[in-house]
Amino acid sequence: VKRFRFDDDVAFAPREKLLDGVTVAPLSRSISEGSPVQAAVFRVAPGGRIARHPATYAQILAVLDGSGKVSGAGGVDEQIAAGEAVFWPAGEEHDTKTDTGLTALIIEGDGLEPFSRQL
Amino acid sequence: VKRFRFDDDVAFAPREKLLDGVTVAPLSRSISEGSPVQAAVFRVAPGGRIARHPATYAQILAVLDGSGKVSGAGGVDEQIAAGEAVFWPAGEEHDTKTDTGLTALIIEGDGLEPFSRQL
Repeated sequence: VKRFRFDDDVAFAPREKLLDGVTVAPLSRSISEGSPVQAAVFRVAPGGRIARHPATYAQILAVLDGSGKVSGAGGVDEQIAAGEAVFWPAGEEHDTKTDTGLTALIIEGDGLEPFSRQL
Repeated sequence: VKRFRFDDDVAFAPREKLLDGVTVAPLSRSISEGSPVQAAVFRVAPGGRIARHPATYAQILAVLDGSGKVSGAGGVDEQIAAGEAVFWPAGEEHDTKTDTGLTALIIEGDGLEPFSRQL
């Protein structure tokens, strides 16, 4: 058993043009380090954003706290709030922004697919 | 872009002896459906537990809300609270319990490794 933290005190602010007002606290190792997927908690400050770009890998974004807006290839903003998730396949242009702040889990990796309820 | 929910209203209570007072809201497809990892939000009610068993896959448990106790192979309970995570390699005996309730993200899959800070 190993323990680690992912609270805001240990998060870092990547120097990355796409990220505006965003801190990142990784949960897993990165894909570049050999992990099958990479998972991290992203905290977006009020007025912050993850700017529009194509998804590098298939990606699930799950809003844990707060609310904001997401869009996909169509570029239409849709409200999203805690308890709601979004999936973008690899290559889909997308963005995430918030007026009031949000915390989201992002999991991404080849072959990742969102949960869909069995009918 | 696809949207889905993982709030408590859509979570289900698996009929599984190891789970006592636990609901599950999946984020990804399961490994049995071909996903490289499986991720889900587990909500453990006050007094509930995920009983002792060996980890099927390498597993990260990240506490999103509330607090509880976890143990690994040594069987020693350690306090864990929101913002803290634990990693168990495949096969390690472990358990999770809570007096006051907790919500945790669980990600598991072959080859998964916890984040460790670059020194």
